[in-house]
Amino acid sequence: MSAALFKSILKDSQILSDNDLKDRYHHIWHMDEPLNALCVLLPSSTQEVSAIMKICHEHHLPVVVHGGLTNLVGSTETHGNEIVISTERLNIIEEIDTASRAMTVQAGVILENIHDAAAAQNLLFPLNFGARGSAQIGGVISTNAGGLRVLKYGMTRQLILGLEAVLADGTIISSMKKIIKDNSAYDVKQLFIGSEGTLGIVTRAILKLEEAPNSRNAAYVGFDSYDQVVSFLKYMDSNLAGKLSGFELIWRNSYEQMTSVSDAVRPPLPYDYKYYVLVEALGSHVQNDHAEFQTLLENALENEQILDAVMAQSSSDVVWFFRIREDVNNLVDFMKHDQHFDISLPIPLIGDYIAKRYESLAQINGVEQVYAFGHVADGNIHFMIGKSNLSTDLKKEIDHCIYDGLQAIGGSVSAEHGIGTHKKAYLELCRTPEEIALMKTLKATMDPNGLLNPGKIFD
Amino acid sequence: MSAALFKSILKDSQILSDNDLKDRYHHIWHMDEPLNALCVLLPSSTQEVSAIMKICHEHHLPVVVHGGLTNLVGSTETHGNEIVISTERLNIIEEIDTASRAMTVQAGVILENIHDAAAAQNLLFPLNFGARGSAQIGGVISTNAGGLRVLKYGMTRQLILGLEAVLADGTIISSMKKIIKDNSAYDVKQLFIGSEGTLGIVTRAILKLEEAPNSRNAAYVGFDSYDQVVSFLKYMDSNLAGKLSGFELIWRNSYEQMTSVSDAVRPPLPYDYKYYVLVEALGSHVQNDHAEFQTLLENALENEQILDAVMAQSSSDVVWFFRIREDVNNLVDFMKHDQHFDISLPIPLIGDYIAKRYESLAQINGVEQVYAFGHVADGNIHFMIGKSNLSTDLKKEIDHCIYDGLQAIGGSVSAEHGIGTHKKAYLELCRTPEEIALMKTLKATMDPNGLLNPGKIFD
Repeated sequence: MSAALFKSILKDSQILSDNDLKDRYHHIWHMDEPLNALCVLLPSSTQEVSAIMKICHEHHLPVVVHGGLTNLVGSTETHGNEIVISTERLNIIEEIDTASRAMTVQAGVILENIHDAAAAQNLLFPLNFGARGSAQIGGVISTNAGGLRVLKYGMTRQLILGLEAVLADGTIISSMKKIIKDNSAYDVKQLFIGSEGTLGIVTRAILKLEEAPNSRNAAYVGFDSYDQVVSFLKYMDSNLAGKLSGFELIWRNSYEQMTSVSDAVRPPLPYDYKYYVLVEALGSHVQNDHAEFQTLLENALENEQILDAVMAQSSSDVVWFFRIREDVNNLVDFMKHDQHFDISLPIPLIGDYIAKRYESLAQINGVEQVYAFGHVADGNIHFMIGKSNLSTDLKKEIDHCIYDGLQAIGGSVSAEHGIGTHKKAYLELCRTPEEIALMKTLKATMDPNGLLNPGKIFD
Repeated sequence: MSAALFKSILKDSQILSDNDLKDRYHHIWHMDEPLNALCVLLPSSTQEVSAIMKICHEHHLPVVVHGGLTNLVGSTETHGNEIVISTERLNIIEEIDTASRAMTVQAGVILENIHDAAAAQNLLFPLNFGARGSAQIGGVISTNAGGLRVLKYGMTRQLILGLEAVLADGTIISSMKKIIKDNSAYDVKQLFIGSEGTLGIVTRAILKLEEAPNSRNAAYVGFDSYDQVVSFLKYMDSNLAGKLSGFELIWRNSYEQMTSVSDAVRPPLPYDYKYYVLVEALGSHVQNDHAEFQTLLENALENEQILDAVMAQSSSDVVWFFRIREDVNNLVDFMKHDQHFDISLPIPLIGDYIAKRYESLAQINGVEQVYAFGHVADGNIHFMIGKSNLSTDLKKEIDHCIYDGLQAIGGSVSAEHGIGTHKKAYLELCRTPEEIALMKTLKATMDPNGLLNPGKIFD
């Protein structure tokens, strides 16, 4: 029994096996699939993770790391022969350095707790997305998570100052510096960011914090032309000089559905436009910033750059505006079965590309709903597609409809969710054979026995 | 003769050897050392670089890439047995996509030409440093250059959307996408950023542009306490909400020297303070931003957060203020011999650390001048040290004085200049043995014959 191998390095309470496993799950998105693994280990330090990996290395035991299990592409799936390392006891916020604007955390700290701890020091960890109440920072880093404020603050990769990870053989790679500039040879921590746990196990990190903003303004804006959406993005970004923090595009039919479920998500603008943009700015002066934002919208209306706009007049309005965009359950709950997408493509091409997908999807038998929306300033569009059945053929037909045009225009099958198991078949649509060969060389070099998150990203 | 090997793939005019080499140099910082190499090749496409590397791979010929030769750590040095690949004919700006805010360039385009091309579209490529008139973007990327505006816009790594590089065996790794979000497996382009040409040769890139700012404000501010410098950084960053773009700290003796050479660099503030900060903000509204900046300074004076301040009242003033900080020749020209440093360390520790170095350096026989200044918001401090002789012992004594305390406090011997040949001996002072071993594994995997920039970073 594999669990017994770890008794010399962990307490009994840190080893779960057999009956202990029955109420654990391998993926939170579909809670109906129970965990299928040899055992679950609960290390509380980098050294314990290292000790675990030395044993796994010796015995050729494959490992899957479980954080908040909010991954959307099957990156935490197990098949029964794996050791699961849960990071839930690596949950310590070790330090907040307000002068360096840096927070040192263990991998299992939940994103929302990081937000709260930063806010208590009048600082901000800007990375933000719907699953913040469950997602753990180790998983956030391993998947290079994006979200709603990439436009202003960048992806996770841009927010990591220091990192500690454990390699497949138990070696600890500790690059725990809280400095913004460090060109002392290769930046090895980049290898562990976004590689979905296949090159090493993230155990600790130093996060880059920002001074907390004091003002937050938001508006919904209506358009009939995609080109005007892009012009408005440039206009707002140029005039807000670093304060523009969100620019979310919602296609009309998605907006109609998102705003028709309850009064909490009632429509801020009527259903008269082809595109709706939720625009957000974070600043430092409550009054000045509100006036500036309002003037920019008024001028855009006057110059006929936009057709309509409604600005949030209170914090409650801001919450209302964002709930519309963030609660994707308002789309999914009305679907028999759902299939979701997370593509990216060059900003100027988005309008046409999505319009053509709407047309093609409408021709597919079994497709019942199609909703598009996304972080258009990052070139990142999500699709939520409702369908009548779970047949593999239908799934593939939908996949190909969404993905097949991306290669020619330099797009990606995964903007922010990763590849995991769900998108492996489509990786070659957005990476060259030479890139994939180099990735496999890195994997074979750093994890020659294929112990780390086997079967993810590549076969 | 090695040059002959390349006649099948390059025109005669693309191959320089023997007498052609006598007026070429290997390093622009000391123009007195002529190039010592087998030949210089002048490819004009990625395909030609690939063809060159296939021949070098076959014949085990080491290669050093020459861009603008502005490197400060000997990363472009040759010893006579190398093929030099010059990127000077890879000088095409291929595209500016104003909606994507992205510029596609070949590796040999000079940074200042990128600035100008972006400005012509009312866009900004924010990376900026003194050598912008010579530095080529391929070298900028290969060294992950920093400079004066990292605080607002990040290092080079944060500004690269797409990249193309040639491996040691001639394989082309093309990741030329102009999208901000792409989590389709490993982000292999990170390997080529900051690895000083030792893992691949950068041939093309897609650069992330920003909307050009309309306003620029700057001031010199005086302090007697380092803690107040840090408080003022937080105060300005918090209140300028994304507009703070520069925060340069200058120690009093450096400021005195920097401002005493000519009227063009006359002192904006008297010599009464222990520290001087040059603070800069880039915004969108000329009048509002000037008023806001001035109010922030006035309030800081009133609250005794700062001792004195003078704000630039015109563009000429801004040029004057920055010339003081940027023209390091005003320090070096008066030195018999110079030795320069580029360290980084946590922001709250800088005041004490530098004070102690000043004390220790004063005790070293042969040290004649010591000037400290730097990008304090990035934790990056430069030292320019004048000395009486070029003895190796003196050099090492000075090196150890600056470097030896860094390891204990999580600092780096190279914030932005790289390791090259000059800092190889000190790499282990800021990287763990495990990190260095992993770096060497990567190097051995990607360049098993050691053809790419041999002897740089590692022996």
